[in-house]
Amino acid sequence: MAIKLTVTHKHKRARAGEIKTPRGSIHTPAFMPVGTQGTVKAMTPEELEQIGVEIILSNTYHLYLRPGTDIIKKAGGLHRFMHWDRPILTDSGGFQVFSLGPLRKVSEEGVTFRSHIDGSTHFFSPEKAVEVQNILGSDIIMPLDHVVPYPAAHRETLDAMERTIRWAARSKDFHRSEEQALFAIVQGGTYGDLREKCTRELVAMDFPGYAVGGLSVGEPKETMYAMLDITVPLLPEDKPRYLMGVGSADSLLEGVNKGIDIFDCVLPTRIARNSRVMVSEGYLNLRNAEYAQDMRPIDQECSCYACQNYSRAYIRHLLKANEIVGLRLTTYHNLFFLREFMTKIRQAIMENTFERFYGEFWARFNGAPEL
Amino acid sequence: MAIKLTVTHKHKRARAGEIKTPRGSIHTPAFMPVGTQGTVKAMTPEELEQIGVEIILSNTYHLYLRPGTDIIKKAGGLHRFMHWDRPILTDSGGFQVFSLGPLRKVSEEGVTFRSHIDGSTHFFSPEKAVEVQNILGSDIIMPLDHVVPYPAAHRETLDAMERTIRWAARSKDFHRSEEQALFAIVQGGTYGDLREKCTRELVAMDFPGYAVGGLSVGEPKETMYAMLDITVPLLPEDKPRYLMGVGSADSLLEGVNKGIDIFDCVLPTRIARNSRVMVSEGYLNLRNAEYAQDMRPIDQECSCYACQNYSRAYIRHLLKANEIVGLRLTTYHNLFFLREFMTKIRQAIMENTFERFYGEFWARFNGAPEL
Repeated sequence: MAIKLTVTHKHKRARAGEIKTPRGSIHTPAFMPVGTQGTVKAMTPEELEQIGVEIILSNTYHLYLRPGTDIIKKAGGLHRFMHWDRPILTDSGGFQVFSLGPLRKVSEEGVTFRSHIDGSTHFFSPEKAVEVQNILGSDIIMPLDHVVPYPAAHRETLDAMERTIRWAARSKDFHRSEEQALFAIVQGGTYGDLREKCTRELVAMDFPGYAVGGLSVGEPKETMYAMLDITVPLLPEDKPRYLMGVGSADSLLEGVNKGIDIFDCVLPTRIARNSRVMVSEGYLNLRNAEYAQDMRPIDQECSCYACQNYSRAYIRHLLKANEIVGLRLTTYHNLFFLREFMTKIRQAIMENTFERFYGEFWARFNGAPEL
Repeated sequence: MAIKLTVTHKHKRARAGEIKTPRGSIHTPAFMPVGTQGTVKAMTPEELEQIGVEIILSNTYHLYLRPGTDIIKKAGGLHRFMHWDRPILTDSGGFQVFSLGPLRKVSEEGVTFRSHIDGSTHFFSPEKAVEVQNILGSDIIMPLDHVVPYPAAHRETLDAMERTIRWAARSKDFHRSEEQALFAIVQGGTYGDLREKCTRELVAMDFPGYAVGGLSVGEPKETMYAMLDITVPLLPEDKPRYLMGVGSADSLLEGVNKGIDIFDCVLPTRIARNSRVMVSEGYLNLRNAEYAQDMRPIDQECSCYACQNYSRAYIRHLLKANEIVGLRLTTYHNLFFLREFMTKIRQAIMENTFERFYGEFWARFNGAPEL
């Protein structure tokens, strides 16, 4: 087995543990920064290590199109290509391909789609998605899934969910590498009955880990949490649980509360490039005039490189002047903030203070960012 | 005296030495990276230190307009604002203001100009330029000068040169800080008689250092070198000599050969953001298809962070995908390359092998970048 989860502490459904992989351990709950194109935007691998990142996510769809698998194969795999020797999780490209809308056509065999870069036509089957990820050499890989938009009718969601299960089976049959763990992805949209059916069938197939996909795509957060309440209790205790596409502090905390171990999202890095930084109370937009003469750090409680050495006024100046270092500092801070946040959640679970942590968070937190 | 140059070794006109300042020593000859807006684009101060940078240049014109002197004053000066505690040289804004063309109007009192950012009207006198730099707190400051475009008529160049001398005198009268060294700027365009007159008059006024300005503005390199041949021998031996706006390897070497100690230019950082990297033989454009599968580092002889950890193929991928880390790596490499280059020149002078170094460089070097 390529990976092994040990749950060390629990508080109701919330869990703290450690996922051991051949490339190092991931202490959970954990947030995975996204390196879509084989780089976490604006950050070097050394900076990610300083921040305490133990695993990153990268995107099969993007890397397959550019630079292409030939080049990554020649480089000796994605880890060597991008100079990151810790664990990498790659998605299957399903979410990206199904987001292309009219540019893709789905059949039982797979999906035909056109590149967003040059319009060229490509075909992804479940086998192809595994094959590409075998070449990438990522430590955790995902099967091609059929993602429906939100909202979607029950019938359409059912068909896509059932196809996702058949594709998961094909992916499992095709995947041979002992070094890479192939997770399954639970689909079923916002329909509880479909989520339940999908979870039960995938669990029966015994995957080394389970992702919950197709959420955080526009539905109300309450709906997402309701789907977790149905799905998570059906998942095996001894396998990692991964909620895809979630990265705001409130949803991370709620996800852990509902039993999730790992998360990924472009949110912290994307909002950083949009001048937004995470603080205990929510978010600040550093372009706002109120920070022009503000000589305090982004967050007075934060011990990150940006907060230890620079003022809001300076970072605002850099952002207004379109300076790259501005984006580096906001990105660094947001990733550090989320890593700290996950560490605090983990400690609260371990020290049996999760309930208090949870209550204090909601008393302090002032809502979501406008993205 | 705020700064003190000790020339330790000479080979004909070429010199190696050390400029001591209250914020640390500058080993010469040295290249100063440019941090126009209070940041060397894409680089943190820690990275500049790793590269071995001992002094940077920043631009009075840009900082005066944005974020403005109030904010930098409140931050405790430019060093604290930008988190760089080693020496900073600021220019006077003369070059920028005179580059604005129809947006500025010159009188004996000073220059009225309009901001390139918001079109607002501003006035710089020699006194104002010193006052702004006093607030910035830079270690070496420059007087406002009257720069003419290339080509310019003898009469126009003469008038501007004489005004530059009068403005240098006013700047010297106005400047009172013992902690900041006010250099003079030799003008005179491409006219040897004007360069000679300007140099003699400024030297008679006894400044702690001398810049050669108004070159590298479009004239043939031979013309620039001819102007140095006239100017440099008239400068005092015990004062630093600064050639403004020069940063290509060939011109740096030739500048040192003609007796210059310090240089600045946006070239290495600007071409880096344009995918061009410096190597012993000249320049590579990493966007070229020939590097798509090239698993070698940028420069096999280079020991910089980019060359130790990344392939040309990976950096090309990042640049093609518009990833910030691509610009970070090319910028890091170019600044490291030039710092190494200046160190090698310095060692050659110290070890009495400058002549051989000079010959070998020209045998290897394949021409200038297309900018």
